[in-house]
Amino acid sequence: MTNRSTYRAAVVKAPGQLELVDRPIPEPAYGQVRIRVEACGVCHSDSATVERAAPADGEPRVPGHEVVGRIEALGAGVEGWRIGQRVGVGFLAGEDRTCPSCRQGDVVNCENPVITGMTTDGGYAEIMLAEARGLVRVPDDLDAAEAAPLLCAGLTTFNALRNAGARAGDVVAIHGLGGLGHLAVQFANKMGFYTVAIARGADKAELAVQLGAHRYIDAKAEDVAATLRGMGGAKVLLATAPTGAGMAATVSGLAARGKLVVVAVPGDPISVNAVDLVFGGRSIVGALTGTVSDNEQTLAFARLRGVRPMIETFPLEEAQAAYQRMMRADVRFRAVLVMNSNNRGAQV
Amino acid sequence: MTNRSTYRAAVVKAPGQLELVDRPIPEPAYGQVRIRVEACGVCHSDSATVERAAPADGEPRVPGHEVVGRIEALGAGVEGWRIGQRVGVGFLAGEDRTCPSCRQGDVVNCENPVITGMTTDGGYAEIMLAEARGLVRVPDDLDAAEAAPLLCAGLTTFNALRNAGARAGDVVAIHGLGGLGHLAVQFANKMGFYTVAIARGADKAELAVQLGAHRYIDAKAEDVAATLRGMGGAKVLLATAPTGAGMAATVSGLAARGKLVVVAVPGDPISVNAVDLVFGGRSIVGALTGTVSDNEQTLAFARLRGVRPMIETFPLEEAQAAYQRMMRADVRFRAVLVMNSNNRGAQV
Amino acid sequence: MTNRSTYRAAVVKAPGQLELVDRPIPEPAYGQVRIRVEACGVCHSDSATVERAAPADGEPRVPGHEVVGRIEALGAGVEGWRIGQRVGVGFLAGEDRTCPSCRQGDVVNCENPVITGMTTDGGYAEIMLAEARGLVRVPDDLDAAEAAPLLCAGLTTFNALRNAGARAGDVVAIHGLGGLGHLAVQFANKMGFYTVAIARGADKAELAVQLGAHRYIDAKAEDVAATLRGMGGAKVLLATAPTGAGMAATVSGLAARGKLVVVAVPGDPISVNAVDLVFGGRSIVGALTGTVSDNEQTLAFARLRGVRPMIETFPLEEAQAAYQRMMRADVRFRAVLVMNSNNRGAQV
Amino acid sequence: MTNRSTYRAAVVKAPGQLELVDRPIPEPAYGQVRIRVEACGVCHSDSATVERAAPADGEPRVPGHEVVGRIEALGAGVEGWRIGQRVGVGFLAGEDRTCPSCRQGDVVNCENPVITGMTTDGGYAEIMLAEARGLVRVPDDLDAAEAAPLLCAGLTTFNALRNAGARAGDVVAIHGLGGLGHLAVQFANKMGFYTVAIARGADKAELAVQLGAHRYIDAKAEDVAATLRGMGGAKVLLATAPTGAGMAATVSGLAARGKLVVVAVPGDPISVNAVDLVFGGRSIVGALTGTVSDNEQTLAFARLRGVRPMIETFPLEEAQAAYQRMMRADVRFRAVLVMNSNNRGAQV
Repeated sequence: MTNRSTYRAAVVKAPGQLELVDRPIPEPAYGQVRIRVEACGVCHSDSATVERAAPADGEPRVPGHEVVGRIEALGAGVEGWRIGQRVGVGFLAGEDRTCPSCRQGDVVNCENPVITGMTTDGGYAEIMLAEARGLVRVPDDLDAAEAAPLLCAGLTTFNALRNAGARAGDVVAIHGLGGLGHLAVQFANKMGFYTVAIARGADKAELAVQLGAHRYIDAKAEDVAATLRGMGGAKVLLATAPTGAGMAATVSGLAARGKLVVVAVPGDPISVNAVDLVFGGRSIVGALTGTVSDNEQTLAFARLRGVRPMIETFPLEEAQAAYQRMMRADVRFRAVLVMNSNNRGAQV
Repeated sequence: MTNRSTYRAAVVKAPGQLELVDRPIPEPAYGQVRIRVEACGVCHSDSATVERAAPADGEPRVPGHEVVGRIEALGAGVEGWRIGQRVGVGFLAGEDRTCPSCRQGDVVNCENPVITGMTTDGGYAEIMLAEARGLVRVPDDLDAAEAAPLLCAGLTTFNALRNAGARAGDVVAIHGLGGLGHLAVQFANKMGFYTVAIARGADKAELAVQLGAHRYIDAKAEDVAATLRGMGGAKVLLATAPTGAGMAATVSGLAARGKLVVVAVPGDPISVNAVDLVFGGRSIVGALTGTVSDNEQTLAFARLRGVRPMIETFPLEEAQAAYQRMMRADVRFRAVLVMNSNNRGAQV
Repeated sequence: MTNRSTYRAAVVKAPGQLELVDRPIPEPAYGQVRIRVEACGVCHSDSATVERAAPADGEPRVPGHEVVGRIEALGAGVEGWRIGQRVGVGFLAGEDRTCPSCRQGDVVNCENPVITGMTTDGGYAEIMLAEARGLVRVPDDLDAAEAAPLLCAGLTTFNALRNAGARAGDVVAIHGLGGLGHLAVQFANKMGFYTVAIARGADKAELAVQLGAHRYIDAKAEDVAATLRGMGGAKVLLATAPTGAGMAATVSGLAARGKLVVVAVPGDPISVNAVDLVFGGRSIVGALTGTVSDNEQTLAFARLRGVRPMIETFPLEEAQAAYQRMMRADVRFRAVLVMNSNNRGAQV
Repeated sequence: MTNRSTYRAAVVKAPGQLELVDRPIPEPAYGQVRIRVEACGVCHSDSATVERAAPADGEPRVPGHEVVGRIEALGAGVEGWRIGQRVGVGFLAGEDRTCPSCRQGDVVNCENPVITGMTTDGGYAEIMLAEARGLVRVPDDLDAAEAAPLLCAGLTTFNALRNAGARAGDVVAIHGLGGLGHLAVQFANKMGFYTVAIARGADKAELAVQLGAHRYIDAKAEDVAATLRGMGGAKVLLATAPTGAGMAATVSGLAARGKLVVVAVPGDPISVNAVDLVFGGRSIVGALTGTVSDNEQTLAFARLRGVRPMIETFPLEEAQAAYQRMMRADVRFRAVLVMNSNNRGAQV
């Protein structure tokens, strides 16, 4: 660590454009910690920040909500955390505790949450501030770059799968084999489900099986819903793929009382026929990440069971390139920015 | 009872056309009973039978699946039922017991069910045959014409409401104030929900309150979803109204983790935005009637709590008129055919 | 309101002995409010405080966790509450937000909660301090003395009943007709359950029916479990009665998949035979009050549906007598201390 | 296959005593099939039959409800099954379909079930009759002796675990490492739980880990509940061990909202303190085997995931010895009778 008083961050200069800037290192406010970032995943949700115009006045925003690092300063009022501790910060990183949802304990649906990289600066940076109540404990023996995607892509799929009501042995299908899907297939297998992977192209079959799929459905060659019905129907179908039309087409492939669990947010609507819902008692439900505790459980499960994301790493300097490749779906399967501030610092 | 060897039934002569015919009184087969029908409700689902062309050969179908009557003959192998017993027959009236759903105990989702008035002749008639396993016990002190609509419109709404996961005090909204809706509002109130009725027109407000609504929303004058959000959102919104577009428009009025429960089957799709599902963990789920046991519980609840359908009665001879008025939504709120065979029989 | 700088409180002088003392009026600390108490219920759980020896050093404890009053001072950092606002304080009145349970949103099972009248001074007093996060909004039009018991006896039974999984029309039995039971019977009826009240003595039958029971079982004259089995078994049996032996004796009266829900904490164990659990898939589950939000929902439900406790009121000066009568089960059905500080203040 | 007109069976001659007899081969009645038995597990529940006096008149009973074999004759009215088909018969082997539980679809809690080896002759025999509706499809490639214990010990633990509500990553503890426990540990691991095995003696630690336990607790050396609490508490604790006192002692080792799931039926009661239930919302619930469909899912899961019982096999002639060793808990871990009727038949 050095005495440098600034840190580097990638900020949104213009819609779709990231720029590297130097900023003064801030002090954590009451209840906050300052984190020395080790790695930050690049998630499709970052586009909600990056594709927006920078504010007319005030600082441009730093994206990034799959952050792994270490605490390097504690704000006033912070208890239970220590300097040097390994921590993570995900998408939801601080509930308000006073809205109706929070008062019922449903903090995931807080009406005024801190959203990392959107309401506050995120992890495309060497340094970031976070609310202590939004921190996730990260085991020291996890690789930073591999742990980062677990904090959003991992949490989202792990939590959606374990909360969907499927039981061991049930047919659980994962639609899409990208950043979320390639983790979901691993999780589904390790949870004891009969795991079906659905993607486009025969070339993905081998990967699907490697990840733990018991069956691969090539959506280019097969009628997905018909194939699922032939297997008795899916009890849960996790929709990580990007179109609403594609999601809707799978509903009739659900088993009786089966659920389409939506974790992706496509641009087009999901348009379903009531007949498919009423006859069979099928449902469609949205699932949104989870609590800090859920996130720690995601990491613990991944570590115990050997669930690991496949990543491509980029230095912070290449944030723009990493972002663009992610947006083109040209990453296999998750882009992660890895900071070199310690090294760089050491050289100074 | 007389020695007449024929009975009268309204059959589908041509799409949309019912005709009164005389038929020989049949003997119940193994496992069946013969019922002397007292009353039969006229349900929108009957149109699936009535609007279809009669078969090229074979007998035309008798519609009707809200049947109340008394057993007058027992087939071989029937145990636990007796001649003279008051019974009802609903939409699902005999599971096959061997399909995957039945073997799991999920008989409502039987893959090869007896569907009254569709796979077998129904209750627009003085006489009908039914599987003993599809019978519903009907208390002697219920009025036949009032009990009939409970066997489908009642069961559907009662079961959907009690299975939707809402808890006492939760905001439960009923969309539509027709045959299903006017029962659903009564049930929701008696189940302890904060009951909201949604329909079109200020003139329905008074009725809604009479039925037990704590709040009426006039969909002509108000933005339904916005009004619901102002109340904290609906935990459950029961969709009995006839358009998919209307259903979709209410999704954003659900509370966090709220459910749109679909019991009507509109012609147009329900087209929802994934954002409304993911943020808030909302869901859309279909609900399909229930078991014979559920139906007996519906009757028991209605009897104990004073839930009664508002009906208009018609003699069997006016089946065509009753059906047409129902299809025009020109009944307040359920049309019921009342048979006079006993009287008529007595006169012969 | 006056300028008096002291307030009166009933404190635990010796095990079982309450003494009225004068204390200086305190300032609320960070995150706290000061409440002018209007009424405080006397609950059996208060005995955990009252029957304990006073601390060797430090102030003796003020019992009482069914508190209704108005905010008269706000500590630093308190937002969303205002002076003059009607509020209540129940048993659990401040989660720590950092323990494993809280981080999962399960604040009722906080490992380090503020427990009113136990870890902090309670409501047997004219004044009390409370954490803002532990406050319950109380409608202005509720009578203070009637609202008070709803904050613990009401919440406990309302929440236990609505969370037990029973559906409308199910047989729900309430064991005990005391402070908790007489509220539970009202709630169960208003939630749409077929409500059974169980107590000792034929003389309670009339009261049971008045409260809303559809059926009364006299445990002196009938075999409770056998009678319940004759009704098909109870889906839920809420145990508010004071002995473990009495609870255990009812288990075989549960329906298949029925639940014994325990809200009382008897001194003797609940000793059950595994056969009764395994055959029938029955269960026994404990239920502990609820969140501040649950409490507000309890009040809203009670207000909308006309659920009211039957109370006997006592001035603060008679706290000792009120407590002793409650402990002897000689109150019909809830003792409530009503403060006269405003009046008294006005007279000074 | 031969023309022999008799088959051999082990019947209950006197309490605790099995005798080998020859009986005429029966014809299956309406709805039944006749099975050529390949193997039958020896389960502790068999003692309910074996330790009972033989009937004064009529045939003595054949025990055994973990039966694997092939259909060799079909009774009238049997559809969907064929001669030569591999099938199994478990404990519950035919619901009555007319009792209140069955009419609700809850066939596991049928009030008048066929119980193999108790209400009808079981599988300690070369031949047995079974109701077609009670048959389980058994894949041809499973070893008969290894499949047999899955039909009761396997089903019981698999179903209890997947229905208990634990989610992937949760701490799930298995109490007991015998016939049920050694399967339960395997299942729990394959379902994605953090799996804890509890038994008596340090010598079992290695086995526990081999079976898939992440952690072993030696109940001789450690305070089980305290150790579990140190791990955050068990979300589910599956009680397969034989004493009620032992079960009760673990309740305080449950996590908040944790469940003690009872599948063994000890002679002594389970005696719990209400405090442990109320504070923490803990529960105790019984679990009873499952449907024929559940049993097929058990076999499918075991086959896909490599869950295999550890067995000791005995010829039918040694049924008495096998039974006695099972009762002394002197089998590692499941005794299975293997029939040699085909061989013997071929030699005649």
